Amino acid sequence: MKKLVSVIGQGTSSERQDLQAFELGKMLSQAGYSIVCGGKGGVMEAVARGAAETGGLCIGLLPGHDQMEANRYISVAIPTGLGHARNYLVVQAGEVVVAVGGGYGTLSEIAFALTMGKTVIGINTWKAISGSGIEAEIIAVQSVSEAVEMVDNFFARK
Amino acid sequence: MKKLVSVIGQGTSSERQDLQAFELGKMLSQAGYSIVCGGKGGVMEAVARGAAETGGLCIGLLPGHDQMEANRYISVAIPTGLGHARNYLVVQAGEVVVAVGGGYGTLSEIAFALTMGKTVIGINTWKAISGSGIEAEIIAVQSVSEAVEMVDNFFARK
Amino acid sequence: MKKLVSVIGQGTSSERQDLQAFELGKMLSQAGYSIVCGGKGGVMEAVARGAAETGGLCIGLLPGHDQMEANRYISVAIPTGLGHARNYLVVQAGEVVVAVGGGYGTLSEIAFALTMGKTVIGINTWKAISGSGIEAEIIAVQSVSEAVEMVDNFFARK
Amino acid sequence: MKKLVSVIGQGTSSERQDLQAFELGKMLSQAGYSIVCGGKGGVMEAVARGAAETGGLCIGLLPGHDQMEANRYISVAIPTGLGHARNYLVVQAGEVVVAVGGGYGTLSEIAFALTMGKTVIGINTWKAISGSGIEAEIIAVQSVSEAVEMVDNFFARK
Repeated sequence: MKKLVSVIGQGTSSERQDLQAFELGKMLSQAGYSIVCGGKGGVMEAVARGAAETGGLCIGLLPGHDQMEANRYISVAIPTGLGHARNYLVVQAGEVVVAVGGGYGTLSEIAFALTMGKTVIGINTWKAISGSGIEAEIIAVQSVSEAVEMVDNFFARK
Repeated sequence: MKKLVSVIGQGTSSERQDLQAFELGKMLSQAGYSIVCGGKGGVMEAVARGAAETGGLCIGLLPGHDQMEANRYISVAIPTGLGHARNYLVVQAGEVVVAVGGGYGTLSEIAFALTMGKTVIGINTWKAISGSGIEAEIIAVQSVSEAVEMVDNFFARK
Repeated sequence: MKKLVSVIGQGTSSERQDLQAFELGKMLSQAGYSIVCGGKGGVMEAVARGAAETGGLCIGLLPGHDQMEANRYISVAIPTGLGHARNYLVVQAGEVVVAVGGGYGTLSEIAFALTMGKTVIGINTWKAISGSGIEAEIIAVQSVSEAVEMVDNFFARK
Repeated sequence: MKKLVSVIGQGTSSERQDLQAFELGKMLSQAGYSIVCGGKGGVMEAVARGAAETGGLCIGLLPGHDQMEANRYISVAIPTGLGHARNYLVVQAGEVVVAVGGGYGTLSEIAFALTMGKTVIGINTWKAISGSGIEAEIIAVQSVSEAVEMVDNFFARK
């Protein structure tokens, strides 16, 4: 059974985020992981492109009813028809989660992953402080290679 | 059709949060709003108790398959069978969202509400800063009456 | 806590089905039950109109994101944003299910209810035979009053 | 992008159904299709075993939170955490649906597929007649090879 890593981030992303997501897709695939993402544009497209370049598997869980919604680098496009609630599935699917930047949708996914007790690794992503002053346990890393190292550590500890 | 306010917060809450949630349930009901929440313990029970005391309607969207999961103050218990994904529904259901304190689940709900463009009012809840330094648009209030005033404003502007 | 009955049927219904659904809404409300349905037109509107006429509660679980999707007789409109998957919720929500006529969506809901071990009462609805020749356990009734009697029996046995 | 076929059927299946599902998995894979199923036992395990034998891809959409729920022939296990509602996803994911035998869950999936306007091919599965006497449009076939031919026809017409 394939080891699945959820990669999350915005559909409209900066050039730098795209570059990071592309690198992430390439490095995760080379390390033997399969990727699951939201299947659309921005970070989702960049990570899928990275995976495709090294022959890796990138599964896209789409919000709508049509495979055609997927970006062209996705290997398996799964339409969910659940709208925004498909975000839950993206996070649910992977054993560990990597966030690249991200808007409110990504914050929602990060928090959901933490609810599930999942490890969340973040590159330039949200930082959140609760009402009682406790910071959310997002493992902040500075680079893609550091993120992949954290993913390796996660699977090694399992 | 009833005006619905989503109230979110933790299942295990502090005494202070319970008091606030109870007051919130009472004041929202008195002001003529119906409440939708997750239907379980903690903040969800306290807000339902507040609503019940003034004859208000409090709908509980439950994670499991059984109405019996609901706390005893819920007027209409709706089992969803969706597990954690029912959190999405709680936020989706109301026109405006009030958070009282809260853990990761609440953060996930807040972020999801913001994704949907909903107004989120928070009493002693999360504060979140994106990777690019932008703070999440949670309207932080200091008291329950201030929260209810914000809800009134929201419906007045609609 | 209110006793919830799920009422299912088509959004485009015949005059006869509307009449039956209207009667059903009226009689269920008079008997003290609350109703949950899909909140839109056809059978869903007729049953809500019946409930409204007797001051009953009819909750509509909507497929989209907007309360405004609901028909005007719904007392509490809950947008789910789940598209077709909201059908599951309609069936999940009630303790017992009554089907009035119905197309493929209704058949899907009936079968889902049976999967959950729920009692399904049908007025002029689907009949289904499995590959091994076993007929699906839908309680076929000829009239609305007979359906309400079956609902009474269900709650009496509980 | 891979062509996805949804295969549905019971978790507790007969020897004959297992044999058919195994053949189906083998033949669909050989013909170049990827398979999506519910990822658990019975028909789901048999079809995954068939796909595995020919190096095909079989994705399992699981009801729970843990990849470990999947049968051992699944290539990509996706935990959805949605319980029974994951059935919707299995049907939503494929472009065409093949049912092998099946209980109420399968009937629910067939009807949902028909709601979505999808082509449903059935081997020894449900037959359903609506209240107005119209039979559900399930393409009944007698053999696995006939089913695969229908799948080929479906993609040829697309």
